[in-house]
Amino acid sequence: MPSNPEWVKALKPSGPQGSELLSQERAKSNLNVDQLAEFLFTKDVLDRNERILNILTADPVFDKSQNYFRGRNTRIEAALARGKRLQQLQVKHNWSKDEYQVANDLISEPTPYGLHASMFLVTLREQGTPEQHKLFLEKAENYEIIGCYAQTELGHGSNVRGLETTATWNPDDKTFTLHSPHLTASKWWIGSLGKAANYAVVMAQLYIGGKNYGPHPFVAQIRDMKTHQPLPNIHVGDIGPKFGYNTMDNGFLLFKNVKIPHENMLARFSRIDPSTNKYVRPSNPSLIYGTLTYIRSSIVLQSGSVLARGVTIASRYCAVRRQFQDRDAPAGEPGENQVLNYTMVQIRLLPLLAATYALHFTGRGMINMYQENQKRMNSTAEPESRRNPGPEELNAGTDLLADLHATSCALKALASTTAAEGLEVCRRACGGHGYSSFSGIGSWYADYLPTVTWEGDNYMLTQQVSRYLLKTARAVLKGTAGNNDTSRIFKEFIRRRDIGAAFDVIGSDTDLVDAFAWRVSFLTFEALRHRDEDKQSWNSLLVDFWRLSTAHGQYMIVKNFHDALNDPQTKKEVDPETVTLLHKLFRLYALSTLEKEASEFYSSAAVTVRQITLARTKAVMKLLEEIRPHTIRLVDAWKFPDWQLDSSLGRYDGKVYEDLFHRASELNPLNDVVFDPYPNSKVLFKEDKRSNLRSKL
Amino acid sequence: MPSNPEWVKALKPSGPQGSELLSQERAKSNLNVDQLAEFLFTKDVLDRNERILNILTADPVFDKSQNYFRGRNTRIEAALARGKRLQQLQVKHNWSKDEYQVANDLISEPTPYGLHASMFLVTLREQGTPEQHKLFLEKAENYEIIGCYAQTELGHGSNVRGLETTATWNPDDKTFTLHSPHLTASKWWIGSLGKAANYAVVMAQLYIGGKNYGPHPFVAQIRDMKTHQPLPNIHVGDIGPKFGYNTMDNGFLLFKNVKIPHENMLARFSRIDPSTNKYVRPSNPSLIYGTLTYIRSSIVLQSGSVLARGVTIASRYCAVRRQFQDRDAPAGEPGENQVLNYTMVQIRLLPLLAATYALHFTGRGMINMYQENQKRMNSTAEPESRRNPGPEELNAGTDLLADLHATSCALKALASTTAAEGLEVCRRACGGHGYSSFSGIGSWYADYLPTVTWEGDNYMLTQQVSRYLLKTARAVLKGTAGNNDTSRIFKEFIRRRDIGAAFDVIGSDTDLVDAFAWRVSFLTFEALRHRDEDKQSWNSLLVDFWRLSTAHGQYMIVKNFHDALNDPQTKKEVDPETVTLLHKLFRLYALSTLEKEASEFYSSAAVTVRQITLARTKAVMKLLEEIRPHTIRLVDAWKFPDWQLDSSLGRYDGKVYEDLFHRASELNPLNDVVFDPYPNSKVLFKEDKRSNLRSKL
Repeated sequence: MPSNPEWVKALKPSGPQGSELLSQERAKSNLNVDQLAEFLFTKDVLDRNERILNILTADPVFDKSQNYFRGRNTRIEAALARGKRLQQLQVKHNWSKDEYQVANDLISEPTPYGLHASMFLVTLREQGTPEQHKLFLEKAENYEIIGCYAQTELGHGSNVRGLETTATWNPDDKTFTLHSPHLTASKWWIGSLGKAANYAVVMAQLYIGGKNYGPHPFVAQIRDMKTHQPLPNIHVGDIGPKFGYNTMDNGFLLFKNVKIPHENMLARFSRIDPSTNKYVRPSNPSLIYGTLTYIRSSIVLQSGSVLARGVTIASRYCAVRRQFQDRDAPAGEPGENQVLNYTMVQIRLLPLLAATYALHFTGRGMINMYQENQKRMNSTAEPESRRNPGPEELNAGTDLLADLHATSCALKALASTTAAEGLEVCRRACGGHGYSSFSGIGSWYADYLPTVTWEGDNYMLTQQVSRYLLKTARAVLKGTAGNNDTSRIFKEFIRRRDIGAAFDVIGSDTDLVDAFAWRVSFLTFEALRHRDEDKQSWNSLLVDFWRLSTAHGQYMIVKNFHDALNDPQTKKEVDPETVTLLHKLFRLYALSTLEKEASEFYSSAAVTVRQITLARTKAVMKLLEEIRPHTIRLVDAWKFPDWQLDSSLGRYDGKVYEDLFHRASELNPLNDVVFDPYPNSKVLFKEDKRSNLRSKL
Repeated sequence: MPSNPEWVKALKPSGPQGSELLSQERAKSNLNVDQLAEFLFTKDVLDRNERILNILTADPVFDKSQNYFRGRNTRIEAALARGKRLQQLQVKHNWSKDEYQVANDLISEPTPYGLHASMFLVTLREQGTPEQHKLFLEKAENYEIIGCYAQTELGHGSNVRGLETTATWNPDDKTFTLHSPHLTASKWWIGSLGKAANYAVVMAQLYIGGKNYGPHPFVAQIRDMKTHQPLPNIHVGDIGPKFGYNTMDNGFLLFKNVKIPHENMLARFSRIDPSTNKYVRPSNPSLIYGTLTYIRSSIVLQSGSVLARGVTIASRYCAVRRQFQDRDAPAGEPGENQVLNYTMVQIRLLPLLAATYALHFTGRGMINMYQENQKRMNSTAEPESRRNPGPEELNAGTDLLADLHATSCALKALASTTAAEGLEVCRRACGGHGYSSFSGIGSWYADYLPTVTWEGDNYMLTQQVSRYLLKTARAVLKGTAGNNDTSRIFKEFIRRRDIGAAFDVIGSDTDLVDAFAWRVSFLTFEALRHRDEDKQSWNSLLVDFWRLSTAHGQYMIVKNFHDALNDPQTKKEVDPETVTLLHKLFRLYALSTLEKEASEFYSSAAVTVRQITLARTKAVMKLLEEIRPHTIRLVDAWKFPDWQLDSSLGRYDGKVYEDLFHRASELNPLNDVVFDPYPNSKVLFKEDKRSNLRSKL
């Protein structure tokens, strides 16, 4: 497309300019942004992130200016180039796993190396023996072999026990035969498999002498190391475009009786003794239990920042965007109102802003608890030991670990749903321009969406949570419950159930937290009655279980946020005004959640109708007003560089309209062609003679 | 990519096959699908749709098999070709506007002719004089000029009065000067403008002698008729990629003092007398009021079918997909459970199934009311007259029209939000595979999303609704209210307010409808008190207004669905079993809505906590169980051909896995290339030697 004519270059947005408006916003609040950011992330982390950002932005392979315009082949080609360069940089700068992750976060789109660098390496490391590390892991770490983790199949996702791929032990030549008996046995959705991987960890049903021992992990080479063509009797490829995540080559994989040697079954936990042809049972299954808890806790921590990107973009844009005058403004008052001043916009964005902080502190709390618990477990059991721990050790450890595991399930489901749905609320709060790719929210949302399904489908997980809560409730009734938080709140509920609750949710923070605990307890004992006394079917209770798990997650978030604010460390690291502001965010999150879920709070008798009405019409509205002046600084504290956001609407400097126009008019390759508009002409496109075609789509 | 090897071709999904499962589903219910479909659409319409489908599927330009794989340039190129062919078919078959629309619906993606064929032609027709029809409309109807409707600007969307583009009257040479004084004056989002249009109807602020007369429509040529290059002092192009709608060339447009003749101001309603240079005022603004009401009512009707596509796909897939055994199933019972049997899936899908019917009947009811009202208005005022009707005529007509207009606003906002968000619920109910483009839901959702913003932003509209409800409430209190439905329910509320309500929402349908009316009335008089007595600012009440408008919309849907079922015509057209089933859908929609909005129903004292609990745990769960066996036939009655759905998951024959595999393995152009996976190799892609490249992305 011809570059903009001079008279267009001379045009400015009508005033006041976006840059002026954001400066005014920042001047309105005296929140210490750097101090808060360091409290959230530490100074070291912030410095490290900036160092990595500078490396990436200096490298043309990471240039983002054509990202939104590209078709799938071109996008994934660019992503592969980036993946390769990233690996080189990792070697060059000797990046840690965390640093490599930061670089990926800044690039903000998956690459075809994604699952190699995560699940493939992790699985080899955690489930392989030292001999297998030598055989596979070392090469994988050097990218001599590129792998993926092939579990999900066309016909089975959540139900791992239902996988159809088989691995049959051949006692004669001490090999396994991998086979896909049906079309639905095809591995499916496997990241990095479609085009990149030459190896895969394949989860398959182990058969020995006709008997099924359940799903186990096997290492299989799938493509030729030189030609990269599929090996014989293997059918593999990319599964096609998706709603998002299109820079990843999610793949399919079918085997027709492919033999692999004995050493290819990952054997740290269970294995076959080739001399006896006997199966050797796993030693300590709770180690895997721990890994899942860790992954889910990480998703909770990440969800705060995922959502914060959307909130940052929408808040800045809504401070720049002006539309209509305030209806009650005195006649003749000039100018339009910033969209962020409308309460209908505030009620959508500010509780989400509060949620970003709530999720951050909750995720941090979960990871701390996980690490403490690991320490405790390691002090009672030899690390990496294969001996079976005694029953008492297991009980002490598992009581806390089971509680942590259930909480991580409830929070993973709630946090990822909150982030995903919150991003869409942010996008819509940007009005029409939110629909443009240049908003930067749509693609981020679309790429994040799988998180509500993977690492435990959010609906499925709520059954695990409820099963645990029911079990704990039964133990409390029997007097055999342990000392974890869930048992504590259930005991308190039982103690006061007949006296009744009268929580001062508006006047007292601890009462507010207790009201959330009360509702969880109420719903648990209701569900328990339905299941154990009324003998209702499990299936008929799934909706109740989902509500129960959500209630438990909300309680945990409110509690973690409250604990973080009352941690003495917090007062050391941030000034009292900041604590006061964070406290308002805590109350906004808690009260707006309480109001949204009002009917459960009523029916549990935790609050009265009058309290809910007051919470909504007075407390929440007042908090919106109090938080409004600090909104821009509160999103600034998340410290997203513009390069990461890649958003016209979310620019730090507020040059929203200039950036939208620049991208449309000067970067958009569709403007390199001319249409022939007449229906009877067979011509469709002509190249614009005045343009320099700058990139193919 | 090489076609599938023989051994892969021989594979089938593990049993039972999807085709068997859907046959069983259809055998379980005796709902007369054809009879219900004819009741919904009429036999004539269904026959007509099939005739058009046959024409389209026979034409290779409409082949959809590469749609999901293409990048933007290639997609819009295909869409332009389709638009051209469609126009030729319209001429060839002498299609009516409705028939042309059906063809577009079947193709299911916008073309660059979209805004020409709709808003451009409509505006010329409705706002042009007979002379202007000759000058512009006739050529436009013959596609000699291709146009668009340029209203929204970079800086202004909802607030039309804030538009910045100016049209200044030049008394000397009897012309207007179109000008964009700022960058934010650039027209933006204008469909068919980016690449296709050579003309535009431009909304611009009319200035005469330095005085602003507000926004008016002007016709402007923007591109050369032969070269299709922009005319001098015009900067125009495509605004770039969007979250969806990427087969449309939404465009931008800037003018630098471009002169257009006097005859280019569309002059049916207001104009300039060139002899006196005086402005002549519009005669009957309520005509436009009527058009908006009609457009919004159409969106309501359309929303039912938009959502029904998602519900059709998700319901069929959830009947084919099996995962886990029922936890309470007797041990040893073989096979997994259909996902649709889980109550957690039913509670997500079946209320949406009910909503599709509710929205359909509501949209139909609105359009009928609109047409009756137009008839009545036309009998009191000469059609196309320019005389000003007398005040009484206006009062009688406007009382009903104002009510209808407010209802159309409330329903447009609620219905399009319900459809958009419901589609995403459907997509997620499909689990992992819902994320694949081949689900057919993601792109449909993304393309539909602008509907929540255009024709009145859904949040903005709720202010108009509330303004009307408050005004009516004031009139009721003063005793000056008219006879429309809103006045009726307010009077009833005032009469019974002190006595109290005791609606039997579970036992009586009319009580159920009345409870919805009661809640609207309660919220209206609450808001009225806040505004008129407490003198709360308009801005502080926006959230209340949004709730109020939503409540009003929900009442109207419940009422319209109820009226449709009790219409004597219904019993003539469908058998009693079908009426009973529709009645269950009515109750499911109403009761699940009541339960979702429980806290407002409590606080208005329309129902008790006990009733809500019963509605949720008994009534709704029982309805799910009763409707479950008829689900597949109920979606079949929407009669979407597979070609329209373009979905692996929603196939009528249930061959879900075969279709997913076929598209991924045999249609996916990414499988025509081979990656070089090693990080230190500079090579990225190589063409797969064994493949025939079938299409560029």
